[in-house]
Amino acid sequence: MPRKVLEEKLQKFLEEDIGQGDITTSLTIPDNAIVAAEIFAKEKGIVAGLEEASVFLESLGLRTKAKVADGTEVKPKMPLLEAVGNARTLLSLERTLLNLLSRMSGIATMTSSIVKKVRKAGYGTRIACTRKVAPGLAYFDKKAVTIGGGDVHRLHLDDMVLIKDNHVAIIGDATQAIRKARENVSFSKKIEIEATSLEDAVKAAEAQADIIMLDNFSPSQIKKTLRALEKKKLRSEALIEASGGINEGNVLEFAATGVDILSLGEITQSAKALDMSLEIVKVMKS
Amino acid sequence: MPRKVLEEKLQKFLEEDIGQGDITTSLTIPDNAIVAAEIFAKEKGIVAGLEEASVFLESLGLRTKAKVADGTEVKPKMPLLEAVGNARTLLSLERTLLNLLSRMSGIATMTSSIVKKVRKAGYGTRIACTRKVAPGLAYFDKKAVTIGGGDVHRLHLDDMVLIKDNHVAIIGDATQAIRKARENVSFSKKIEIEATSLEDAVKAAEAQADIIMLDNFSPSQIKKTLRALEKKKLRSEALIEASGGINEGNVLEFAATGVDILSLGEITQSAKALDMSLEIVKVMKS
Amino acid sequence: MPRKVLEEKLQKFLEEDIGQGDITTSLTIPDNAIVAAEIFAKEKGIVAGLEEASVFLESLGLRTKAKVADGTEVKPKMPLLEAVGNARTLLSLERTLLNLLSRMSGIATMTSSIVKKVRKAGYGTRIACTRKVAPGLAYFDKKAVTIGGGDVHRLHLDDMVLIKDNHVAIIGDATQAIRKARENVSFSKKIEIEATSLEDAVKAAEAQADIIMLDNFSPSQIKKTLRALEKKKLRSEALIEASGGINEGNVLEFAATGVDILSLGEITQSAKALDMSLEIVKVMKS
Amino acid sequence: MPRKVLEEKLQKFLEEDIGQGDITTSLTIPDNAIVAAEIFAKEKGIVAGLEEASVFLESLGLRTKAKVADGTEVKPKMPLLEAVGNARTLLSLERTLLNLLSRMSGIATMTSSIVKKVRKAGYGTRIACTRKVAPGLAYFDKKAVTIGGGDVHRLHLDDMVLIKDNHVAIIGDATQAIRKARENVSFSKKIEIEATSLEDAVKAAEAQADIIMLDNFSPSQIKKTLRALEKKKLRSEALIEASGGINEGNVLEFAATGVDILSLGEITQSAKALDMSLEIVKVMKS
Amino acid sequence: MPRKVLEEKLQKFLEEDIGQGDITTSLTIPDNAIVAAEIFAKEKGIVAGLEEASVFLESLGLRTKAKVADGTEVKPKMPLLEAVGNARTLLSLERTLLNLLSRMSGIATMTSSIVKKVRKAGYGTRIACTRKVAPGLAYFDKKAVTIGGGDVHRLHLDDMVLIKDNHVAIIGDATQAIRKARENVSFSKKIEIEATSLEDAVKAAEAQADIIMLDNFSPSQIKKTLRALEKKKLRSEALIEASGGINEGNVLEFAATGVDILSLGEITQSAKALDMSLEIVKVMKS
Amino acid sequence: MPRKVLEEKLQKFLEEDIGQGDITTSLTIPDNAIVAAEIFAKEKGIVAGLEEASVFLESLGLRTKAKVADGTEVKPKMPLLEAVGNARTLLSLERTLLNLLSRMSGIATMTSSIVKKVRKAGYGTRIACTRKVAPGLAYFDKKAVTIGGGDVHRLHLDDMVLIKDNHVAIIGDATQAIRKARENVSFSKKIEIEATSLEDAVKAAEAQADIIMLDNFSPSQIKKTLRALEKKKLRSEALIEASGGINEGNVLEFAATGVDILSLGEITQSAKALDMSLEIVKVMKS
Repeated sequence: MPRKVLEEKLQKFLEEDIGQGDITTSLTIPDNAIVAAEIFAKEKGIVAGLEEASVFLESLGLRTKAKVADGTEVKPKMPLLEAVGNARTLLSLERTLLNLLSRMSGIATMTSSIVKKVRKAGYGTRIACTRKVAPGLAYFDKKAVTIGGGDVHRLHLDDMVLIKDNHVAIIGDATQAIRKARENVSFSKKIEIEATSLEDAVKAAEAQADIIMLDNFSPSQIKKTLRALEKKKLRSEALIEASGGINEGNVLEFAATGVDILSLGEITQSAKALDMSLEIVKVMKS
Repeated sequence: MPRKVLEEKLQKFLEEDIGQGDITTSLTIPDNAIVAAEIFAKEKGIVAGLEEASVFLESLGLRTKAKVADGTEVKPKMPLLEAVGNARTLLSLERTLLNLLSRMSGIATMTSSIVKKVRKAGYGTRIACTRKVAPGLAYFDKKAVTIGGGDVHRLHLDDMVLIKDNHVAIIGDATQAIRKARENVSFSKKIEIEATSLEDAVKAAEAQADIIMLDNFSPSQIKKTLRALEKKKLRSEALIEASGGINEGNVLEFAATGVDILSLGEITQSAKALDMSLEIVKVMKS
Repeated sequence: MPRKVLEEKLQKFLEEDIGQGDITTSLTIPDNAIVAAEIFAKEKGIVAGLEEASVFLESLGLRTKAKVADGTEVKPKMPLLEAVGNARTLLSLERTLLNLLSRMSGIATMTSSIVKKVRKAGYGTRIACTRKVAPGLAYFDKKAVTIGGGDVHRLHLDDMVLIKDNHVAIIGDATQAIRKARENVSFSKKIEIEATSLEDAVKAAEAQADIIMLDNFSPSQIKKTLRALEKKKLRSEALIEASGGINEGNVLEFAATGVDILSLGEITQSAKALDMSLEIVKVMKS
Repeated sequence: MPRKVLEEKLQKFLEEDIGQGDITTSLTIPDNAIVAAEIFAKEKGIVAGLEEASVFLESLGLRTKAKVADGTEVKPKMPLLEAVGNARTLLSLERTLLNLLSRMSGIATMTSSIVKKVRKAGYGTRIACTRKVAPGLAYFDKKAVTIGGGDVHRLHLDDMVLIKDNHVAIIGDATQAIRKARENVSFSKKIEIEATSLEDAVKAAEAQADIIMLDNFSPSQIKKTLRALEKKKLRSEALIEASGGINEGNVLEFAATGVDILSLGEITQSAKALDMSLEIVKVMKS
Repeated sequence: MPRKVLEEKLQKFLEEDIGQGDITTSLTIPDNAIVAAEIFAKEKGIVAGLEEASVFLESLGLRTKAKVADGTEVKPKMPLLEAVGNARTLLSLERTLLNLLSRMSGIATMTSSIVKKVRKAGYGTRIACTRKVAPGLAYFDKKAVTIGGGDVHRLHLDDMVLIKDNHVAIIGDATQAIRKARENVSFSKKIEIEATSLEDAVKAAEAQADIIMLDNFSPSQIKKTLRALEKKKLRSEALIEASGGINEGNVLEFAATGVDILSLGEITQSAKALDMSLEIVKVMKS
Repeated sequence: MPRKVLEEKLQKFLEEDIGQGDITTSLTIPDNAIVAAEIFAKEKGIVAGLEEASVFLESLGLRTKAKVADGTEVKPKMPLLEAVGNARTLLSLERTLLNLLSRMSGIATMTSSIVKKVRKAGYGTRIACTRKVAPGLAYFDKKAVTIGGGDVHRLHLDDMVLIKDNHVAIIGDATQAIRKARENVSFSKKIEIEATSLEDAVKAAEAQADIIMLDNFSPSQIKKTLRALEKKKLRSEALIEASGGINEGNVLEFAATGVDILSLGEITQSAKALDMSLEIVKVMKS
């Protein structure tokens, strides 16, 4: 995302927090004080958001130097980013900056942990997030998933057709839904459909869905479904995604089914923020 | 917050998700289909965000009926909100709506759980959140804390003076920082200062801080500090807040110290989203 | 697109035109005058934008009644839409409204004309637009293409991978570009690549591109390329798009090659606006 | 227009196109690749928008060098503008940039062609555009008209009084409309009125309109009207504008009437975009 | 200005004031309380802004009834506007609403007072404001001037050419400045120039400026200048505006010179706000 | 307030004024002309807004040099700020810049005059503004008050509880209002209540309001109220603010009462703008 577009998004976050100004800072810190600060990790995890942090700091006139790259596994006390510049500016943006970094790093950490667990067990299954992001933060949440090794899935409601239960409840028939979509959709888009039973999944494959999402299937139901598709020579015709009830604890059972993609809402919706702090390391002028 | 101001914030969230339009819905659902839908809880917790959800739905032309009030303790399958209207609109906003409700309810649930634990143990200690919110979501995160029975703490950087470590690091002296702030701050604002030692806390009370935050103190350090303040007849001169390392597991040990306020970053930053779903319950016209 | 999101876009167009207010109207028309007006076609074509026009008028407090549906083939003097309400409002928005309708209808008319020509000649080839839209008007331009029977192609830079000449110029090798993209792209996205020679196209198919764009190929080059792909049993592995130098005059020669998709920049970039006018048909109160 | 204000407008265009980011570019191009690119004309015409293009490129961190000035008559393969900088940024903005340049150059080309035709035939008639611009693009469309040698006419609804048919239809009487406007309008504004007959035009001149627009008059009707005004010694009291049905084909017949201004909707509404391309000419770092 | 465009401007004012919400009101007033309130004048003056006030109140869901019209001369305790609806909403917007009404009414009052003084003395001189408005409030300030019987002068920098001292300082010669402007300006715009001496004014008239502004001329200098213009038969060729140092005290001396327009910065920049209050007159539900 | 956030606010002011561009300047001034300009005071007063002026100028590419600091007492002809750069940009922003500086300086001048009068008479009473600011200008108006030596009072509706007459009119009882607020308000906020009688004030102090506003009390009523509070040993429990009917003329009588804070709407609502001008002092390139 071009820097200017990103800067504007970050600016809005700061504006929300700052109201009519950081009164603490303007009451106590000289307006030309210059400091150097460092952002430190306070716990173990995968850092994400350093690129955004640098853009944010630089857009406000501070010089920055990343000490590690996004995606690095960090440990407590490890310095992540250095910033030098106006003390008032730095103190005013500290919380907004850390809130973004901590959230993105928390998401990357959880994603990475699940991906590594799956890879270590020898599975190539894709680990994807969903659209269950924090409102307004899709770009940042999805970027953090990427940094953690996950797949971003749909970015907007306009980049893939995904026919869900509620669509079928209205249209009345999944096969017809796929046909209607296929007739009018741009060639540039894939079509995915949610299946709630083995039979649904088979029909979806027969109707030439590009991707079939097995919604709330147990690992054994998934296996049965995959076998049914293989029997009908449909297994390679579509990607198979499983979603619902998957978490770090049971992910290997799901991966073991041979499904192509596992998607988890919790990596963007319920990841614990990674603890970090910003510390003034040098007062150059006060 | 007046409805129109809120509507605009919610609209921005939808715009981000929708891109050039929900292609699935416009390809498969007739543009004049009318449906009734219900939002259900899928797990136990405290619901928050129903007021925002209603404003959002109504601003997009749907009729709504809340089945429970914000702050209600809900159980799986309990209906929370009913919406009737254009099917395309409803399906297009479903995810944005649930993302907000799930986040707010998750925060309210965690806050409430901690507050109840403290009250049940007989303590009146205030449980406060911090400014560790998701970027752009301060209003919603803080409102959820209120619904869960917590205290919102500062809303912006302009509504209280809070002199932190990094400020003191630059100014060089906490007492002087308080004096500088007091001289120029509006009478309408309180002054809080972070203390990192018993001595700091005593000096802050002597300098007439309205609130003193004991940063990363253990329960026993807090007790010692409170005793020292009492000895000097300073205990009732300032509110005492403890922050850092407090969580649902150890909150009672902190409450037992007699401190006035406990603040926890995790209730806004790391609460698990409350699982919910929206289901079409009736197709009135398709 | 939900009505509110659309309303806001349309409002911005009006604001640009109106400055500090329509001085002619406020100087000459009573502020409570009520009128009925009709929008008429002044030439033959396919009308598009009536849905947007209605949303725009209604959002400003006018009642509307569409006389025909979007996509209808209209003739001179045919009434398209009726609006009743405050005269000042109606006169102030007239030009903004007609500018949108005329543009969208012009695009739909050109698209439809080409699509019909191709269908009449017996070809099923998809006629697609490109991202050559007017800046800021992608939603409207692409919707008009749909109404005219065309394919919208990519909506944003984030909904399909499309590796162009300039990408390959930097990476150095098309096959590697496809491989790099495939490794990291979400399963939800297709991958297209631009080919500038028969050899390029074959390599792209071998590298499993989902779509191959033959850039500036003549009809005979396209035919040769398709034959080469068939020989290698690669024809059915990818969709083939031709782009560059195609227009209403030569479109049948391109369609005759058997290519899957023909994309034309001119339908969004150089379509003649369809002439229309708004006329006050009744003064109800002045 | 100050650069910052312009930058913001251009940024919005890019944001619309980019969604959550240019996935092709971020998947295939190293984030620190540096390239030089040139924009070339692909057909003959008058270039316009190079100033805006430079501002756009520079605002995103690229260095630029215009090879020709706005208003230059360009030929195929002529380099127009050079840009050097981050490859990802450049590739992400390419289409938005070309869309603006092509549109503006198309408008300037058509305007210039008509103006030159009229001048070559020895007429000094002003060639003006109207408010028939693309929604949201008034600034750019009107600037392109200026570059092509045309007159911008009204910029907003607030910068001149222009009483049209629909106003008169409500007020009932053109003379009264002019009087009402004159009584209350600021001295800083001119008053123009649309006339639909010779009689109307004479009355408008008698009522001291500053400008009279002859709406849909044939050349011979215009001549008669001008003669009637001369007879009454009113010809020099007002500027006379003809509008409606004028195009490049018949413009000389209209100019020959001796009217002061000819206005044409098609130069902003139906000009063919000027074909251009951006090519990477050097990879400095990849 | 169409209601929606106005609503948006007013909304922004409220948002600035409201931060994360009116905590007083939400802590003390039930969320479904319904009240009736009246706005009263607290001093004598001309009321302005009631139309904007009604739009504002209605856009937030309140019902309103104007008791007097904009432009009415009001007295202390006179009710101006009644509003009925949600108590929280009403209390939250009270200050924003009164700030706008008081400002606009203050401007209208001062304008009206000067206009009446001039009319009473028998002069028809136009009393105009300038662009010396409060930043962001041009629309409201200028509308208030109109309600007070004044002339709005230029609305933007784009609706008239006004060549000032600083322009001439750079170009070097006023006559040339007028010529340059005349050559390229649209026929739809007037040209005004600032003159700082009698000689300047004469040259400007000879160069066919539409309006000549005598900058900081004393009444006697103005008279001399008008005589000089009459002698050269140039008086009726241009409107003459005097500006600088004119106020309510000396306005008649300036009007007596026979100048066409007197413009005063102070009516928009230094008018005393008209004191008003909003009072709850009935609690319908609490 | 971080520079970027401020820049954006200032930009909006310019955009409002500039419409589609400063036509005078673009028609008469070469686009690469470079000039030096100075802003001069034209009357005596306290200058405010130079920091904002510098940010504004620099954000548009001009170099600046402040000749005096905000808060300086200036005299006619004293240079305040120097700017060097593009002539077109400078002339286009001149009026917006001066409007802001003149308004802020006018407010600072009036505030300072009152504060000095009070201090000179030996009183330490705080002089505060209210929320009676120009809509949209709270930040600038309040900053000017600070520069003039005044207190900013509440910044938003969310930074202090201030229970006013209208709240009590709905709740029915002031003591209950304070109790309701105290129970639920964050510990970070103060509670103020408006009293309209001596009895009200005493009850408010008994109910532990942090601040009590004596609304429209005469100096003698204030004295009586303070004595009553002293008798009950409540004087030191709350800050006492007097508001209503206070102005520069009578401020000493109010200060003499011993009240803690005097708040005046007129310093932000009715201050006379300080006259200033911008002059081109050198043409470096034209």
